Order: sequence, then C-alpha cells, then structure tokens
Amino acid sequence: MALNSASTADNGRLLIRGADRPGIVACVSSLLADFGANVVSLDQYSSDPEGGRFFQRTEIHMPNFPARIDELRKALTTALTDGLDLEWDLVESKKVKRVALFVSKSDHCLLDLLWRHRRGELNMNVSMVISNHPDLSDDVRAFGIPYLHVPVNRDDKAAAEERHLELLQGNVDLVVLARYMQIISGDFLRRVGAPVINIHHSFLPAFVGAGPYQKARDRGVKLIGATAHYVTEDLDEGPIIEQDVVRVTHEMSTADLARRGADVERQVLARAVAWHCDDRVLRDGNTTIVF
Amino acid sequence: MALNSASTADNGRLLIRGADRPGIVACVSSLLADFGANVVSLDQYSSDPEGGRFFQRTEIHMPNFPARIDELRKALTTALTDGLDLEWDLVESKKVKRVALFVSKSDHCLLDLLWRHRRGELNMNVSMVISNHPDLSDDVRAFGIPYLHVPVNRDDKAAAEERHLELLQGNVDLVVLARYMQIISGDFLRRVGAPVINIHHSFLPAFVGAGPYQKARDRGVKLIGATAHYVTEDLDEGPIIEQDVVRVTHEMSTADLARRGADVERQVLARAVAWHCDDRVLRDGNTTIVF
Amino acid sequence: MALNSASTADNGRLLIRGADRPGIVACVSSLLADFGANVVSLDQYSSDPEGGRFFQRTEIHMPNFPARIDELRKALTTALTDGLDLEWDLVESKKVKRVALFVSKSDHCLLDLLWRHRRGELNMNVSMVISNHPDLSDDVRAFGIPYLHVPVNRDDKAAAEERHLELLQGNVDLVVLARYMQIISGDFLRRVGAPVINIHHSFLPAFVGAGPYQKARDRGVKLIGATAHYVTEDLDEGPIIEQDVVRVTHEMSTADLARRGADVERQVLARAVAWHCDDRVLRDGNTTIVF
Amino acid sequence: MALNSASTADNGRLLIRGADRPGIVACVSSLLADFGANVVSLDQYSSDPEGGRFFQRTEIHMPNFPARIDELRKALTTALTDGLDLEWDLVESKKVKRVALFVSKSDHCLLDLLWRHRRGELNMNVSMVISNHPDLSDDVRAFGIPYLHVPVNRDDKAAAEERHLELLQGNVDLVVLARYMQIISGDFLRRVGAPVINIHHSFLPAFVGAGPYQKARDRGVKLIGATAHYVTEDLDEGPIIEQDVVRVTHEMSTADLARRGADVERQVLARAVAWHCDDRVLRDGNTTIVF
Repeated sequence: MALNSASTADNGRLLIRGADRPGIVACVSSLLADFGANVVSLDQYSSDPEGGRFFQRTEIHMPNFPARIDELRKALTTALTDGLDLEWDLVESKKVKRVALFVSKSDHCLLDLLWRHRRGELNMNVSMVISNHPDLSDDVRAFGIPYLHVPVNRDDKAAAEERHLELLQGNVDLVVLARYMQIISGDFLRRVGAPVINIHHSFLPAFVGAGPYQKARDRGVKLIGATAHYVTEDLDEGPIIEQDVVRVTHEMSTADLARRGADVERQVLARAVAWHCDDRVLRDGNTTIVF
Repeated sequence: MALNSASTADNGRLLIRGADRPGIVACVSSLLADFGANVVSLDQYSSDPEGGRFFQRTEIHMPNFPARIDELRKALTTALTDGLDLEWDLVESKKVKRVALFVSKSDHCLLDLLWRHRRGELNMNVSMVISNHPDLSDDVRAFGIPYLHVPVNRDDKAAAEERHLELLQGNVDLVVLARYMQIISGDFLRRVGAPVINIHHSFLPAFVGAGPYQKARDRGVKLIGATAHYVTEDLDEGPIIEQDVVRVTHEMSTADLARRGADVERQVLARAVAWHCDDRVLRDGNTTIVF
Repeated sequence: MALNSASTADNGRLLIRGADRPGIVACVSSLLADFGANVVSLDQYSSDPEGGRFFQRTEIHMPNFPARIDELRKALTTALTDGLDLEWDLVESKKVKRVALFVSKSDHCLLDLLWRHRRGELNMNVSMVISNHPDLSDDVRAFGIPYLHVPVNRDDKAAAEERHLELLQGNVDLVVLARYMQIISGDFLRRVGAPVINIHHSFLPAFVGAGPYQKARDRGVKLIGATAHYVTEDLDEGPIIEQDVVRVTHEMSTADLARRGADVERQVLARAVAWHCDDRVLRDGNTTIVF
Repeated sequence: MALNSASTADNGRLLIRGADRPGIVACVSSLLADFGANVVSLDQYSSDPEGGRFFQRTEIHMPNFPARIDELRKALTTALTDGLDLEWDLVESKKVKRVALFVSKSDHCLLDLLWRHRRGELNMNVSMVISNHPDLSDDVRAFGIPYLHVPVNRDDKAAAEERHLELLQGNVDLVVLARYMQIISGDFLRRVGAPVINIHHSFLPAFVGAGPYQKARDRGVKLIGATAHYVTEDLDEGPIIEQDVVRVTHEMSTADLARRGADVERQVLARAVAWHCDDRVLRDGNTTIVF
C-alpha cells in the first residue's frame, strides 16, 4: 500500500463495517457516483462468503468535499445506517490525527516516530509527549514538541492517570505508548476517549508480561520480535496491528537481544501508527483488518 | 490474499483495465448488482489520481452464473467496451487453466509444482510436461501426468519448437518454464497462443543471462534471489511477477548458492503460477499489478 | 555456513563441550597439529568470558584418518577428558547418520526431506519411514525406502512404541518426527538410543499443543511460524534448533494458514536435520548452539 | 554474532590472512597460550581445502595486555610474518575507531548512526561530520559533534577534496559516506589513509549509478534493497559488506520506494559500520569475509 498518499482538501475516507449481504459495494459505489466522488482506492473484506462480517475502506476524491460533507453524511445515514444496518465513518483526509506519545526512558521508538513525522512519513500531529521521567525532554523539545513530565508515584498511580486525562481529554485522537513502562488502568482506557496503541517487545503471544528478552534468551528461541497492538484491559491481549521478527543466535546476550529487538520495535510501531493514522486498521473483535 | 478461495460453479472473475475516469467502480458495481451478483472481493488500482491507468479485479458470486454468463457479457460490452472504452475479461472460476510445464534436468521447481497441485494449492490442470531430456519421466508419470521428451538439436532448434507448438496449440492456457534451459524464440512466443512464465535463478535485473550463481559468488553479494516473470523476446527482461531472496555468506561455494537458491526458485515460481492461475496478475506495460 | 561440504574419507569432526578455561583452543590445536591434521573449519563459543561453558566444533582433514582414529581418540582422552575435564566426540565425516522418519498423513515435510536427500542436500541415510497410517506408502517406496505401517491403537499406545523400538534400536542414529501426530512417551525417549527431532507447527513458545493454526487465527497474529526442536518429555518444551516465520493477513482462513505454514515447516525441519546430520548442533541445557 | 561485546582494557583482536597451509590455527593458538591469552572467540575461514586463502579473527583476553602488546607483536612477527608468510593485525579492543561521517541533505543514515552511537551500539568515536550542505548542522551539533560545511563547487571538486584531506588525514580510521551524493576521486582514496564505506540505495549489482529507485520502479521489481560496500575507484563496484531488501508493490510511487528504502539503507549501513568497527570484516579480493 502507498504509505503516504497525498491528502488534499477534497479527499476523504469512508469506513464501513457490519453484517455482510449482497449489494453493499454497489450501493456505496452508486451513492458516491451520484455525488461525483471518484473512487481513488477501495479495499473490501468479507469474513465469510455467507453470513460473514463486511469491512470496506474507500478513499474518495470529491470536488468541493468540505462544503458537501454534511450532505454526503445525510445520504450515507439513509443508505447505510437505515437501509443496510451498517456502521460507517467518513473522515476528511486533511484532518490529521492529534497524537500523544507516552515514553519512559528508552528513546528508540519515540525518536523514530518524531523523526519520521518530521520527514513527512506519518499523517499525524504530535500534540505532546508525556513521560514519567525527565530524561528525554531535550530530545523531544528539539523537535518543537511539548514534553510533559508526569511522575508516577508507586503508591498513587491513579493521581498520575488523573493528570494524564486532564492533559489528553479533548486534545488527542490517539495515544501511543512508545515504550511506556507503566500498566494502564481500565478506568483510564474507558475515560481517555481515544484508542491507545502499545508496542510490546516480543512476538505475542510468546513472552507476555515483563522481561521478554530475558525469557527469549532462557527459552533459546532463534528469532525475536515485537508486536504493536491496541491496548485493552487484558495485559498484552489486545488486537494485534503489526508484528515482525529478526534472527538471533546463541551468541547473543540478553542485552544484545534487547539492542537488536529495539530495531524491530521501532519499525513495527511506526508501521502501526502510520496505518492507524491513515484509517487503514479496522477492529474485528479481538483481531484487526489492515487494509 | 487468500491463496485458495473455494471456486464454485457460480463464481466468476471480472478483470478490467484501461484509462482511468470517475465512476468506473460505480458503473461496474451497479451492473453487477442488477444481475444479483454479490461482490466476494474487489481489488482496484489507479496508476495516478488524474489521467492514470485503471485496473480492477472483482470476484463475484452470481446464482446460476454459467447459464447467465452470455447475458452478463453482453451487458459488460455495452457498459465497459462501448460506454467507457475499457478492456475486460470475464472468467468462470470453475474453468481452471490448462498448463504445460517445461523442464530440463533440475527437478526442484517441477516437483514442487506437481506436488502443490496434488495438494490442491494450485488452481490448474497440468496437461503435460515437456522436456529436452528423458531424466524426469518416472517422477512425472508417478503423478499421472504425460511426460513428452522432445530432444533439442543444437543445430535445429526450430524443429523442436515446431514439435512443441503441435503439442501445445489449443491445448493449454499457460506455459511454465520450470528450469527449462533453452532460449525461447520470438516466433514461438508469437504462435503459442498462451502466456509463458519463466523462473530466473537470480534477483533480476542483477545477473542477467547464464551462470547467475557463479556471478553472484564472484561479486560477493550477501543475498541471492529468484525471479518469476513473463517471457518476452528480450531475454530476462519480461514483466516481473514475483521475486524473493535468501541470505548467503562468504563460506558458501557456488554449488551451495545453487542449492540454497533452489529453495527460493521453487517458492517464487509456485507463487507466480498460483497468482496467474487465479487471474491475480495484470500486465501494465513491462510491469505487473498483482492483486 | 556451508550446507554440504564435501566429506571425504580423511575428514572428521571433533566436538567439545565443558567448563571454559584458558588454553583449551591451544591444547586442541596443538594436539591436532601433532597428528598432521589440518583445521578445515573451527567454530567456538564461550557462554561467558569468565566461568562460562565452552563449546567447540572443528572440522579436520587428516591423511589416513580412518587408520589413525583410535590413536587420535587415545590422545584426546588423555588431553581433554583427563587433562581438562571436557566432554568430546570424534566423528568420521564419511559415516553419515542413519535416520528414521516418522509421519502420519501430511506429506509435505516427509517428501521435502526425501527430495532433498535424493538431491544430495542432506548427509544422511534414510533407513525407514514409520507411519501410523498407510497413506504415504507409494510415495515413500518410489524413493526405494522401506515404509513400515505401525497402527497406533488409542487404548494401547505402548504396544506401538514397543514395535517402534524393535525396528529402531541399533539401526538408527536419529529419529525425525516429520509431522507425526502422536505424543511420544518418556519411556520411548529413554530407550530409543538416538536423539528425536520434531517439527512443531507454530513459533514456539507461542501456541503450544494442538491446533496452533486455529489458535493463531483466533489471536489475529500477523506472522505464523514453525519450530524444529529436540523432543523431551515436556511437550513442545525441548531445545529449539531452528525457527522461521511467514507473513499472513486477516484474509486468510485457518486452512490458508496451514497451507502457508506447511512451507515454513518443511524448510525449518530440513535445516534442522541438515545441521544435526553435520554435527553442527550442540545442546546447552534446554537451548542449542548451532555452529 | 554479539554486536557489542564488552571491550575491556585487556582485550584484543588478532586478524590474520594469507595462503592457507596446515598448522596455522595450532601455531597461533600455542603462541597465544604461551602468553597466557585466553581465546574469547575464534572465527576461521579457508577459501578452499587445498591451496586456498586463509582468514582468521581471534578475540583474546590477556592479563596486562597493553603493557605486553609489543612483546606479543614481536612474537607474532617471528611466527606469522617470518615463519608462515602471513599478514596480520593486532588491535587493542579499547582503542575504538575514529570515524568521519560524510552526508549531503538526506538525514536518515546519519541520524541513525548518531543515535545508535549515543545508545552504545557502535564501537566508534565520531570525530566530525562533513557535508557539502549546511542543512543538517543543528541536528548534528545537538549530539555534541563538529559539523563542517565544505561546499563542493561543480567546477572545482578537487578543491573540496583537498579541504577534506586536510581535515581527515591523521584524524580518522574510517570514513563513512552516509548518503553523500558526490563521487569520490581515486586521488582522494589513495591519499585519505583510511577505508571508506558507502551506502548505495539499491541491491547491487542491480541499478548501479544514479536514480536507483526510479529504475526499480520502471523495471517493476518486487523487492528493493540497499548495499553497504567499501569504496573503490570503480563506482558501485567495491567489496560488498552487507545488503538487505524489503518488499514493495505496484501501488508504490518512486517516492514511496525511496521512503521505504531509507529504512533499509540505514539498517544496512549501521550493520556494516558496526562490523567494521569491531574488525569483523576482512577483504578477500573484491569480496568480503564477515566474521
């Protein structure tokens, strides 16, 4: 897929999901054609030929899109919500997602996201970086991005989460845990009002929990990996967006694995964030469709 | 992509290509919906948002498809050929492609294709195996497939090609050169009436021509590869369908490279043949779209 | 590493393991030099610079090797066993390992090993194929290899294992479970007198036990894998020899995963068997050193 | 291999190359044992069992190494130079290489090296960054490293190279062209007194010269790559140290390829520099041995 298609003011993305039935693609295509919208790209997936779930992502180009978006939404409500009992979202491509990055002390995922963003690889705005440590403030501020140090007191984690929610609510469309080494509470997830993506430093479901590189070393695996996933209340159990691995050998210490794994972590997280920001990731129960 | 979607009698594939313009997807979708055809999967690509080339592959499920295919073809001619100046093909999924395999003495690509076919991985019928050597006849006949030995006389290659054409014409939809070590003439390509896929034992365009593993060893590359491509009159210059590589080291002799490369060759060729037989490969000048 | 170095009558392999200490490499090298043995290749690994475990694999070329092997063994006993408290093996390269292959109904790993063996890729002799089903007898016998059908009665698995032991004991140096879908008892492992290699159809330690592709589909992973390991009494917990993965997507059914996974399984198993047969794999607790 | 083994004051690396003959390993091992040097790791390669070229890299730990290095050198001269006609180098592990990085405007390879260096992944000291453009000065100086802007006048490239040589001579052990878009003259290479590593943005020998991503797009390849190599007078023809590839599709524009390729470039270059700085790369004619 094109990682970075030009997003002009007249482009939009229509995301549809629901129970599959004949004629959905035709219904949507006709409606878009009636509006003079050209289909730039179309991805579609049915979980089963009969009785399955239906997913579609359509990028459209429609002259005068912002002025006519309400009219289009009205038509989609009639056709899709009322007519076909489908869920849908219509997104203006020019409205890039506002993202908060959480980090502890490891810089590799954070710096890679900031640098890719500066290069124009990621369709996002970084609203703020939040950390439980002050260490990375200079690096972050060099990119012109606010660095907010919110210490986490072991005995009162809730206080830190309250502070996080004050900073985030209404201000961000996505939270990315770029090696943030604190467990996120269910209360936070319910209140934050935005999806949360985490990078786990193992090839899930292998090596859930803390210390995955040490566990990998002890088990003697020949590949190590990383997993980007949406965060749910079940630790390391949320829907997987992307994974990758790299070959290791018996000669490598746990520190060597961590160093080599860092390369995989930053790439996997960057891909997951890029895809999410381009509305390419649709959730299907505890799994994901990545168009 | 699903490697092996069930192909029932009521399934078909519609392939479209031509100059892009707004409304193609909608036009096709509506027409299919009018026929009661459900879109099982849809892939679409435009080479450029404005003034580009348009490619679409649609898998449909349409009750009573074989009986109504002529009616559908008539409607497509009106809508696509006459109305939008597009080229298209409509294929019945149940009509699997008839394939001839050419081989010399190396068995790895041939056996892998025959074995995958027996396992049901490849939507094809193998009509015959043609070889310039008798060596592999037992292996092939164990699969219940005719083995035709057509010796190639260095001084009269044209005679062998005449014999090939007699055997092939009207009998096959695809010719696969599964390590057939003879150059194919332009005359043969023009007359055979079917596309020809070759596996080249290098990562093209590196190491064109004979002896690629020796050349790879001499150059000291750290990866070797294989390339499946449609054969054209320009040796090793045809449209690439699939490529892959594998890591090698300074310790490996040319024979080691050939042995390791054989693994890549058979996988790359198998993928290319599978995709071609599922009508997933569309040619775009000297390149391919693989849906 | 060279997968298939020529093994002449005068070549041997010396494998050493034990507590590390200064001077082991020098002691061994001098001893070999005294015998006029040339070091063809030398791999060495210490688990820790101080107080670690030492592993070394040396390929030697020594004129008149078979006639002088007892003399060399005597010298090694004095120098390594008595002098340095190390374990060692001295193997004649020309004595290829005698291997029994176990299989149930899936042919992909079995046929791949037989093909590679016929092509000269694997330094082994296949003594027999043992199966709890009759299905693959024709395929195996076409290679000129005995196929022994030993049905396994659910209520008396011990009887089948007794039959296996009768067939194997004294006749094989290695047992390979090439998708043999029966659990091996500890009693069998203790009595068989040869190492047992299994191919597990997941990236261990993810998806231990039965049905790994269904579990992978349910979890929504983006890569699937295979693991070759020595069999121990703990199911799927033995020392890992080799692993690999392949990318999958949301579009793939469990059957698609199994089909794609089969390609990884056969490659991973073939590499593990090749390395074992070349004495490249040394066990280090529950992990392996692969030279 | 361990990317970053601890280098203490008492560690060294002995590199040997020359015509193979029996007894080299034994001779070296005994000599080291006589000095009380423990072999931490040993890699050895012979290009041919008979009449080949011999290469060995040995990491040693020797109490009081710095004080005794001259004594050891003298013994090595007698044994290896005089006795066996071999070339050798003895390096103190604590003496990390002094490196100059050359860059034009693309920041990805440069920043990646600087980050990795700061994280402790690369055993080098960055003496200076030299660029023909001023663009990246802020980024570099944030790492506390001198940024030297040496404009290159199209009509007097020799003047710039003179300036480079003034800056470099005697000050660096390695020059890395981290996407420096100027051709280096043979005169510079002869005078600089240090090896020069370049990253080429294609999988050499495919797409030599300028514009490889455009050429890759035009040819329709399915993988793109990058190659790190020592620079010689023949453009893009020097000994290859490392290569890697990444999968691409028909949907990607040339700009997409460049963006995706940048990820491969920076990883390939980082690995090549890491290996060179650990003295793992030995040249063998126009190829490399990487231990």
